Amino acid sequence: MIQKNIQLDNQGRLKHLLTLEGLTRQMIIDILDAAESFTSVAGQAVKKVPLLRGKTIVNLFFEDSTRTLTTFELAAKRLSADVLKINVRTSATSKGESLLDMLRNLEAMHCDMFVVRHAESGAAHFIASHVAPHISVINAGDGRHAHPTQALLDMFTIRKHKGEFAPLTVAIVGDIMHSRVARSQIHALTTLGVSEVRVVAPNSLIPTAVNTLGVHVYHDLSEGLHNADVVIMLRLQKERMQGANLPSEHEYFQRYGLIPEKMALAKPNAIVMHPGPINRGVEMSSEVADGPQSVILEQVSNGIAVRMAVMSLVLGRPLEGTMT
Amino acid sequence: MIQKNIQLDNQGRLKHLLTLEGLTRQMIIDILDAAESFTSVAGQAVKKVPLLRGKTIVNLFFEDSTRTLTTFELAAKRLSADVLKINVRTSATSKGESLLDMLRNLEAMHCDMFVVRHAESGAAHFIASHVAPHISVINAGDGRHAHPTQALLDMFTIRKHKGEFAPLTVAIVGDIMHSRVARSQIHALTTLGVSEVRVVAPNSLIPTAVNTLGVHVYHDLSEGLHNADVVIMLRLQKERMQGANLPSEHEYFQRYGLIPEKMALAKPNAIVMHPGPINRGVEMSSEVADGPQSVILEQVSNGIAVRMAVMSLVLGRPLEGTMT
Amino acid sequence: MIQKNIQLDNQGRLKHLLTLEGLTRQMIIDILDAAESFTSVAGQAVKKVPLLRGKTIVNLFFEDSTRTLTTFELAAKRLSADVLKINVRTSATSKGESLLDMLRNLEAMHCDMFVVRHAESGAAHFIASHVAPHISVINAGDGRHAHPTQALLDMFTIRKHKGEFAPLTVAIVGDIMHSRVARSQIHALTTLGVSEVRVVAPNSLIPTAVNTLGVHVYHDLSEGLHNADVVIMLRLQKERMQGANLPSEHEYFQRYGLIPEKMALAKPNAIVMHPGPINRGVEMSSEVADGPQSVILEQVSNGIAVRMAVMSLVLGRPLEGTMT
Repeated sequence: MIQKNIQLDNQGRLKHLLTLEGLTRQMIIDILDAAESFTSVAGQAVKKVPLLRGKTIVNLFFEDSTRTLTTFELAAKRLSADVLKINVRTSATSKGESLLDMLRNLEAMHCDMFVVRHAESGAAHFIASHVAPHISVINAGDGRHAHPTQALLDMFTIRKHKGEFAPLTVAIVGDIMHSRVARSQIHALTTLGVSEVRVVAPNSLIPTAVNTLGVHVYHDLSEGLHNADVVIMLRLQKERMQGANLPSEHEYFQRYGLIPEKMALAKPNAIVMHPGPINRGVEMSSEVADGPQSVILEQVSNGIAVRMAVMSLVLGRPLEGTMT
Repeated sequence: MIQKNIQLDNQGRLKHLLTLEGLTRQMIIDILDAAESFTSVAGQAVKKVPLLRGKTIVNLFFEDSTRTLTTFELAAKRLSADVLKINVRTSATSKGESLLDMLRNLEAMHCDMFVVRHAESGAAHFIASHVAPHISVINAGDGRHAHPTQALLDMFTIRKHKGEFAPLTVAIVGDIMHSRVARSQIHALTTLGVSEVRVVAPNSLIPTAVNTLGVHVYHDLSEGLHNADVVIMLRLQKERMQGANLPSEHEYFQRYGLIPEKMALAKPNAIVMHPGPINRGVEMSSEVADGPQSVILEQVSNGIAVRMAVMSLVLGRPLEGTMT
Repeated sequence: MIQKNIQLDNQGRLKHLLTLEGLTRQMIIDILDAAESFTSVAGQAVKKVPLLRGKTIVNLFFEDSTRTLTTFELAAKRLSADVLKINVRTSATSKGESLLDMLRNLEAMHCDMFVVRHAESGAAHFIASHVAPHISVINAGDGRHAHPTQALLDMFTIRKHKGEFAPLTVAIVGDIMHSRVARSQIHALTTLGVSEVRVVAPNSLIPTAVNTLGVHVYHDLSEGLHNADVVIMLRLQKERMQGANLPSEHEYFQRYGLIPEKMALAKPNAIVMHPGPINRGVEMSSEVADGPQSVILEQVSNGIAVRMAVMSLVLGRPLEGTMT
C-alpha cells in the first residue's frame, strides 16, 4: 500500500505534500497560517515575493487541467521561481522506466520541485519515493486518491468564514466514490476536529469502505443539508461515472442539484463551496452558484495563497518578513 | 450596439483599449508620446523596465496569431509583468456562461489585464463589460471590428516619417470590407485630422456603409495611389473572402498588387506599410516589400513600444523616470 | 558548401555557435572554462545570475526535442534572460521566403539570440547567414550535420573525469552515419588532441567519408572497447535508419549493446556516456546505464552550465564577478 510518512523529513517537517493522511492537526494549521500571510501579497501593487527566486519548479501534468496548472504556475511566479512546464503524454506513464529516466534528467538539471498531476492513484507517491533527496513533490491530484492542496484551500476558506472547525457540520454532496477532492476534504475535516462530516450521494456513488472514513452517509439531499454550516458540492465527472447506474443529468439535478429551496434547509449563514469548474444546472443552479452564500470564487483566490504557502514550506522557506 | 465609453474610467482616463472610436485626438497623441519613450528601451543593454513588476497579464487568444501574441508577450515581459497564456478553444465561446466563469476565475486569481483576440466582433467589448473593476482589457483583434493597437503602431510609424498628420494623403489598399485593421486605421487617421483618407479595392471588398467613414473610394489602384504620402497595404485573408466574387490571386495581383511602377505614382518620399504577414506576389512584390520606401519592419519594432505604452497606461503607470 | 567562419566576428570572437569545425583548441577550452564557472551557479541557493537580464532569447525548434529545449530554456532563465518559444511547423521551412520573413520580424522585435533546431543539415548556418548583425545563432542540432553544445558538454564531462585529453582513447559506438552528435564529438576530440578516436558500428552505419575524419573504424565492439578511457554510446534513432539493412533491435543489442562483460574490456576507470534519452536494452543494459562507470546524468547537469557559457559568450558577456 501507499506509504504516507515519506512526505516528512527526518525532523518531521513537510518535504513533499502527497496526501493529508498522516499530517497532524498542527501541521495543517501551520499551512493555513502561512497561507494567511500570502493573502496580503495578492493585494499589493507588486504581487511578488522573492522567497523562491532562483528555484526551478516543474509542472508535470500527465492529466489536463488548465485551472489547477494555472494556479500552481501563478503561485510559483509570485514566489519569483522559474517555472518549467513539461509536456508529458499519458503514454509515457505506461513505461515506468522512461518516467524514471525523465525524473533523473530533471533532477540532473537541478530542478527543485515537481508538481505532479496524474490520472493514476499513487502516481505522486511513486514519484516522491524515487526522486533525489533535494527534490520536493507536490500532488496536484492523482486518480481517485488525493488532491491535498484543493482540500487545504477549502479548509482555509472555511476557517475564514467560520473561525473554529470543531462545532461545524459539513455536508459534501456528489460523486464521493470517484472524488479525490472528497477524500482529501474528509481527511482534513476529521483531522481538524469537525464534529460532523456528512456525505450525500446516491448509493452507487458512495465508496464501499465509507464506514472507515468517520462520516455520516445520506442519500437524501434535504436530510443531508439540514442545519449544515458548510455545503461542499463536488463536480460531476461524467467520464468517471460510466457504469455507475447513474440517472440522467436532469434526474441527478432533480435529486441532488443545489437550488435555493434546498439551500434554505442549511443554517442561515451556511456557505456553499465547489472546486470548479461548475456544471451549472447539474450540480447546482446559477442562483446558488452566484448567490450571497457562495464562496466559490474566494476558493480560487485562496488557492493561490495556499499553494504559495505549501511551495515555500516544502522548500524550507517559510515567510519571514522577506516581502519585496 | 457596442458601447464605446466603457473603455474610459470616471475621470475619462483609458481603462480598456477596445477600439479607437470615441478616443479623442489628444488621447491618441498621448499614447504615441508614451510609446516614444519606450522605443529607447529596445536600444538599451537591458531591455526591461520594472513598471509592471508583480502585475499578471493574461493572453486570452481565442484565435491563433503567433505574431500578435508574441509582441504582446514581449511587451509584457519587457515591462517586467508576469505573463500567462491560456489555451482557449474556440468552442468555449459558444457557451457564454462558461466564458464568464473562466473570467471570474482569472479575476479571482488576481490577474490584472486580459489581452483578448477573438474571431467574433464585439468579443473584447463583451469581456470588458463583464470583468471586475480592477481588470483592464486590451483588444488584440476582434472579428471584423477593430484592432486598435495595430492602428496605433501604424500611426506611430507614420508620425515618425511624416511628422504632421493634417496635410497627408493616405491610401489603404485591399480587403477593406473584412479588415478590422482598416476600420481602426480609418478611425485613427480621421481623428488625427488626415486631410484625405482613401480606400482602394474592388467593389466587392468595399463595405456597404463606406460613405459613413469619411473616406474616398477608389476602384483603380493607379488613381488611388496618385500623390499619396502613405500607402497601407492590407493582408488578403483568403478564408474571409469566400463568396466575395474575388478574381484569382494572380488577377488580384495584376489589378491591386503593389509593384514599383505603381508605387512611382505616389509621392517620391511616400512610405509603404503592411500589417504582416505579407503574401508576397499577392498584395505586393518583393521589390516593394523589401524596397527603400518600405517601413514594414519598423512597424513591427514600433508595435512593441506601442503595446508597452498601452499596457502601462491602462494600468495607470505612465513612464516616469522609472527606468531600471 | 557550408561556410564555417561566419560564426566568428571581425575580432575572431565567437558570435554564433553553429559547428565545432573551425574553432581552435583554445576557443573550445575557453568555453569549457567559462562553463566551469557556471557549475557553481547550480549549487547556489539562488540559481540565477543577471548576466543576460533584459536579453530576449528565442527558441526556434523546427524539430521536437523536449530535453534539449528544456536545457536551453533553463540555461536562459538562469542567466535572467527573457525566453520566447516559437511554435514553428516543419512546413514553414519549405518556403524559404516565409522563414526569412519570420526572422526579419523577430529581429525587428529586438530579439538577441535564436536557438535553432532543425531536421535539415545546414539550417542553422542558413539562418546565421541571413540574420541582422545584432543577432547570435546557436545550433541546437541540424539534420545529420552538427550538435555543437552536446559535444561541448561531452568534452566538459570528459575533462572533469580525465583531466588531459591528449593521452585518451575514446570509442564512439553506434549509428555514426546519421549522428550529428558523433560528427561534433569527433571534431571536438580531434581538435583537443585526443590520441585515438575510434568509431564502432556495423558497416552500414559508418559514413562513406569516414577516412577524412581522422578516426579508427571498428566493426567489432569488443575490439573497439579494448583499453578505451571513454565509451560514448549513441542513441539508435529508428526513424533515421530505414533501409540501412540494420538487424533487429535484439540482434543489434547482441552485437553492439553495452553490457558489463563488454565494458570490462575498457580500462578499469573508463567512463560511459550517452546523449540521452537511452533506449535501455538496445544501446546498453540498465546495469551499465545506472552503473558506477556511467556519467550520463552528469552530462545533463553539465549541459546547463555549458549552454549558459555559450549563451553568455556569444552575447559578449563572459562571467566576471557579477554573481547576484
